[in-house]
Amino acid sequence: MKIPEVILIEVDHAPGVLSKVLAVVGEAQLTIEGLSMVTRTQSKTVWELTIEVNEEENYDLTGRINRLECAEVIGLSDRVFNQHRGGKIETVSKLGIHNLEILRDIYTPGVARVCLAIEEHIKLADEYTGISNTVAIVTNGTAILGLGNIGPVAGMPVMEGKAALFNQLAGLSGVPILIDSKDPEVIIQTVKAISPTFGAIQLEDIAAPECFEIERRLQAELNIPVLHDDQHGTAVVVLAALLSATRAVKRDLKECSVGQIGLGAAGLGITSLLIEYGVAKVYGADLNPAATEQLEENGGFKASLTELMETCDIVVATTGVKGLIKPEWVRPGQLIFALSNPEPEIDPADALEHGAAFAADGRNVNNVQAFPGLFRGAANAGAKRFTSKMLFAAAESISAHTPDNQLVPNPLDKEIHQHIATAVYEAARTSGATV
Amino acid sequence: MKIPEVILIEVDHAPGVLSKVLAVVGEAQLTIEGLSMVTRTQSKTVWELTIEVNEEENYDLTGRINRLECAEVIGLSDRVFNQHRGGKIETVSKLGIHNLEILRDIYTPGVARVCLAIEEHIKLADEYTGISNTVAIVTNGTAILGLGNIGPVAGMPVMEGKAALFNQLAGLSGVPILIDSKDPEVIIQTVKAISPTFGAIQLEDIAAPECFEIERRLQAELNIPVLHDDQHGTAVVVLAALLSATRAVKRDLKECSVGQIGLGAAGLGITSLLIEYGVAKVYGADLNPAATEQLEENGGFKASLTELMETCDIVVATTGVKGLIKPEWVRPGQLIFALSNPEPEIDPADALEHGAAFAADGRNVNNVQAFPGLFRGAANAGAKRFTSKMLFAAAESISAHTPDNQLVPNPLDKEIHQHIATAVYEAARTSGATV
Repeated sequence: MKIPEVILIEVDHAPGVLSKVLAVVGEAQLTIEGLSMVTRTQSKTVWELTIEVNEEENYDLTGRINRLECAEVIGLSDRVFNQHRGGKIETVSKLGIHNLEILRDIYTPGVARVCLAIEEHIKLADEYTGISNTVAIVTNGTAILGLGNIGPVAGMPVMEGKAALFNQLAGLSGVPILIDSKDPEVIIQTVKAISPTFGAIQLEDIAAPECFEIERRLQAELNIPVLHDDQHGTAVVVLAALLSATRAVKRDLKECSVGQIGLGAAGLGITSLLIEYGVAKVYGADLNPAATEQLEENGGFKASLTELMETCDIVVATTGVKGLIKPEWVRPGQLIFALSNPEPEIDPADALEHGAAFAADGRNVNNVQAFPGLFRGAANAGAKRFTSKMLFAAAESISAHTPDNQLVPNPLDKEIHQHIATAVYEAARTSGATV
Repeated sequence: MKIPEVILIEVDHAPGVLSKVLAVVGEAQLTIEGLSMVTRTQSKTVWELTIEVNEEENYDLTGRINRLECAEVIGLSDRVFNQHRGGKIETVSKLGIHNLEILRDIYTPGVARVCLAIEEHIKLADEYTGISNTVAIVTNGTAILGLGNIGPVAGMPVMEGKAALFNQLAGLSGVPILIDSKDPEVIIQTVKAISPTFGAIQLEDIAAPECFEIERRLQAELNIPVLHDDQHGTAVVVLAALLSATRAVKRDLKECSVGQIGLGAAGLGITSLLIEYGVAKVYGADLNPAATEQLEENGGFKASLTELMETCDIVVATTGVKGLIKPEWVRPGQLIFALSNPEPEIDPADALEHGAAFAADGRNVNNVQAFPGLFRGAANAGAKRFTSKMLFAAAESISAHTPDNQLVPNPLDKEIHQHIATAVYEAARTSGATV
């Protein structure tokens, strides 16, 4: 798989040197992700170069650079690891506890008044505790990113990343909860037992098919929103991307036929959302008969990979299989979304070359676009569940804020997340999510 | 019970006015907790006055103040509630996620490298996640403060207070976990299921006798420290106070007879720690035979309240019963610790008047003195459990940092918490807590 590698290169401090180094990187067929100066002395400069490498390949970049007289690789930077050191999140006090008066207000004896007030009117917990602003990020580690079942502890960096993004993009407190079990019943009972702590539950990187049952049961048995991000967060971002792409080619998404290749958690989530959104014909291909049966139950149509490629206006692939779609299968005018990360089912350039009207890979189709606004909007509305209308509203808002020549907006634009939250809030209030 | 009340008083801006107001407060037999200026105009000043009132009594303080020509009560301040608004803690990102490079480092794709490294060497989670620095603060709400079984949600302000103190005094991330069950087995299984998330477990305000079984089982079945704060945190602070008091009266604690009135979670925790610490004779009185049996199993001696008062050098009471100890029961030279909050079993002044060599109530004997350093020290040492030596070390360190004329140190002195943590760390390394 492709991973970022960060190299420290010391170069002579002279004109033209850096371009020679970058030329060597280009000759090695590597794309530059970032470049920043680390130190500069009278005669030398150290640059930190970030590239994306394929772990399985050997580029001998160090040898190539060192053969230049003017530059030397002096080490690998641990930037990615350094940013994870000690974890990426922490629980902090919102108040400085700098004198005894504050201690007595927020701890004994003052806190007792607040406890008693909440005991009498449980709704006051929304006002005087952080519960309604707190989202549990629950995983059992069975489907972490594309890495598979690596266990909950190895999945913690992803959960901390989600929590960091909740904080920075939506002002929510995300609390990772790692559950040491593969048994859906244990996960359901555990989450139910600790649910008074949280205003919402985000299920994350839990393998199919267990994830379906866990989400369905928890939402049925709890009175707070429960969302499996891999299904619905991804589906929202894909719907947004489809809306933006069809707008660009001046077509109406609802009248297009859409073919989904791969019916795992993401694929089933995408097809369900498209069907509910009103896309007339949604086809799906998967080798697992249980998955295609589920699709048909949801109102979609089973298709073979060939049938799907031959008939559908729009093709979405989430299989994790690099190069699954042969360029010659692409029909002129098709819209192709090959979303597997880090390697797409077909290179967008190849698809375009074979006549696709639009082609994209999964690089920018990331659920970070959706989940902060979805949960912020649900919290603001006091929603008890996510309705389809809330998911549609998020997708339409994302698409509405997408610049013309792009597929999704800048994921770090806080204002856009705020707009998405507002759209979700309105949809929650008008679709029965709060009762 | 006694609670803080905060009154806003507008007074003429002239010399002598404030002292008249405070004289009225004194005449109402109220003690001033705090006074701060809110606004000052040309002719008027608004003061925020904090007093401790007994909810059951009517002082008519407003009427008394308003009868002064120069002052008027203009309202009650919601300072305590205001400080709880929106909750007292939040989860924050330790990194500003302000560009795509950081997003790609801490989320996809960069995070995958860290996940894979942890999958390969699980110990790396200590370095690249916050797990080892995170303490679950677990309650089921059955014994919140002295308020009893008010439920987990109403107990949340206490848990958030603990988390705020963990952050401010020890740099630890405290994560409240509210469990909606009174069944010890459910609590044990739930905490076990989510335990990979945390470096330690603090059990909090769980009623006896369930708390004993829950703590024992969790510590036996988990490989991280588990501490029921109401038992052991309180016991550590009481041991520290006893060490300081006996030092003040030049006696050796281990040679004293200690009588414990009330054998709930706190009382049994105190007697166990004193017995293990080497106090030769520890007596206990409780109306519940199961409690006195437990004391005897731990190596203590059952006594009646009368026997205990007649024979013990030191008396500790944690019954929650105001005025339980009659002043005439006090023997000359006794050390009396009437620790129930907010109303002690005997007023220290009355005990001293009847010949006690030392008397204190529970106002300053608060487990906030102990738990931050206990958990910080355990985390630093990589301890897998709390040993008695770690508890002794904390108590001795607290006592060593107590000024001569006091019972415990300033609870907000971070440096002292650091000293306590160091003592606990050393004890952990030398008492087998890390293996």
